[in-house]
Amino acid sequence: MLTADQKVVARAPANWDAVCEPVRPFLAQVSEQLRDEVAAFDPRISAFVQYALASQGKQLRPLLVALGGRVAGRLNSDHVMAAVIIELVHLATLVHDDVIDAADQRRNRPTLAASWGNEISVLAGDCLFAQALKRAAEFPTPEVCRMVAEATKTVCTGEILQTLRRGDFQVAREEYLRELRMKTAELFALACRLGLRLGGGEGDLREYGLNLGTAYQLYDDCLDVFGSEPSAGKSLGTDLATGKATLPLMLALEQATAGRRDELRGLLADWRPELGEELRAMLATEDCRTACRTEVDGFLEGARGALVALPANEGRAGLAALVDCLEEQMDGLGAG
Amino acid sequence: MLTADQKVVARAPANWDAVCEPVRPFLAQVSEQLRDEVAAFDPRISAFVQYALASQGKQLRPLLVALGGRVAGRLNSDHVMAAVIIELVHLATLVHDDVIDAADQRRNRPTLAASWGNEISVLAGDCLFAQALKRAAEFPTPEVCRMVAEATKTVCTGEILQTLRRGDFQVAREEYLRELRMKTAELFALACRLGLRLGGGEGDLREYGLNLGTAYQLYDDCLDVFGSEPSAGKSLGTDLATGKATLPLMLALEQATAGRRDELRGLLADWRPELGEELRAMLATEDCRTACRTEVDGFLEGARGALVALPANEGRAGLAALVDCLEEQMDGLGAG
Repeated sequence: MLTADQKVVARAPANWDAVCEPVRPFLAQVSEQLRDEVAAFDPRISAFVQYALASQGKQLRPLLVALGGRVAGRLNSDHVMAAVIIELVHLATLVHDDVIDAADQRRNRPTLAASWGNEISVLAGDCLFAQALKRAAEFPTPEVCRMVAEATKTVCTGEILQTLRRGDFQVAREEYLRELRMKTAELFALACRLGLRLGGGEGDLREYGLNLGTAYQLYDDCLDVFGSEPSAGKSLGTDLATGKATLPLMLALEQATAGRRDELRGLLADWRPELGEELRAMLATEDCRTACRTEVDGFLEGARGALVALPANEGRAGLAALVDCLEEQMDGLGAG
Repeated sequence: MLTADQKVVARAPANWDAVCEPVRPFLAQVSEQLRDEVAAFDPRISAFVQYALASQGKQLRPLLVALGGRVAGRLNSDHVMAAVIIELVHLATLVHDDVIDAADQRRNRPTLAASWGNEISVLAGDCLFAQALKRAAEFPTPEVCRMVAEATKTVCTGEILQTLRRGDFQVAREEYLRELRMKTAELFALACRLGLRLGGGEGDLREYGLNLGTAYQLYDDCLDVFGSEPSAGKSLGTDLATGKATLPLMLALEQATAGRRDELRGLLADWRPELGEELRAMLATEDCRTACRTEVDGFLEGARGALVALPANEGRAGLAALVDCLEEQMDGLGAG
């Protein structure tokens, strides 16, 4: 039985498009419904809402809802709404994120904050949160609303913790990982869980979602250090410039020779945003990349392991393939 | 019958303490429960949450829940939770407000934003919103959650509209009043309505809440222009300094002599925050105060009128007395 399970997991295509293929109509419905959500806001603020909603990325969270749903069986209209709700929460956190990070670019265009200022962004984010919870409350039982509100709180708490330790380059890796789990992985977990539950499925996808989400955020943090702006489509190097210690720096400090470590610490001791690029160059070593890959691999394995207990079907195969995709992306970063 | 009703309304004590007296234990329970909410947050952010929750003012919204509840009958534990939820939403909006207004003081102490910065404030506000919705989702049916999410969205939309017209001194009074209804009165209406509904009462307190809330915000806007900082316990003159046209300015422009109007317009044409105090002094005339009182009186009458259809009991008498209190406060401002 275990062998059969693992075979399904191994057979999954390690290709983003292939993972999305079977749920393409669902993802299109989610996009359409999300566009239609603009009509639910006051016309005088619809320009901001439309702008924020248009920054939907590669629909990772809706995909998780869909795959979680396919583990249970067929997708239904509740799945579409759950995906829309999670995207609303996610886009709201991005809008507030951009205020906090003072980022200029996201997904190849100016951020809402850069275009219309922080005031509008804070409030537009609030409206998106409220709309998400309003939609969640339209389900016949308050369970969806409870789960969404709880996850939202966890995400925002994770963001606060990350903000609090800004400028602290001595942060423990354990603490850093806990923050990632809260600020990113929690919403991944919510997406899979709602997908499964709204399909009437048994079992739990929380462990899978937390592991995949942590791996994803680790990848994103590595991208900020090792990636190139044109292919990433967003400002990079912002973590270091804003004093955020992430995995590459932590591993570099752990693994560097004594001399190199002193050099790094010297740079950090008198930290200024302008030093970001210099630090970024110092971290871009093959050793540091390899160490990061190893760390991420641990979480990818955790995600794979969490799938074993599920029924071996297309939904589960898709979830496994998603892990493979992320692994390949991580490899691509190493080769860059 | 109508005469009897009106008698109850007229007999109500025009004194804040007297209005609160019959529901003092309820208000104490709300305070206690709100303090206990800190335990529902991650310990590492509890200092911020505690700080934000401690800025509870005179419990106007919990009082509205209580009086709305008493219109229906006895208060129950659902009323306490509804009041806590509304206070959480209200305090969250205050935290975000202070980011937007860059205010230093609120209720005689530094704002959260002034103490810990905008980043923490944005996120702490988000956590408070999420906690409010989480509590709302703990009710057995999703109706409370729906009402809270809808009101929250309206409040934040109202705030955006107000922010958008900052620096525009030609705004129509109708538009200004619509903003007040959204950003302030909607939560007043929610408080009364939830109070009544959770007590199993018939009828609707929406009209009352919207009128009282509008009058209250008009009073607050007048306080910002006519009040004195020591007695108000917060920074004043911030509306004018941040380019927010409010009732006193609108009425002054409408009613001024041609020469005076030119003088005002001259000041506004080349607006800088430093001109706030000069403008404030220009508005502090007896005529302007009287005109503001007349405008507020219209909404106070609207609130009174909305009570007539309700059963003539202590709850309704309390709601009527609240209108009297606000009227007296407004008079006090005129005499200042």
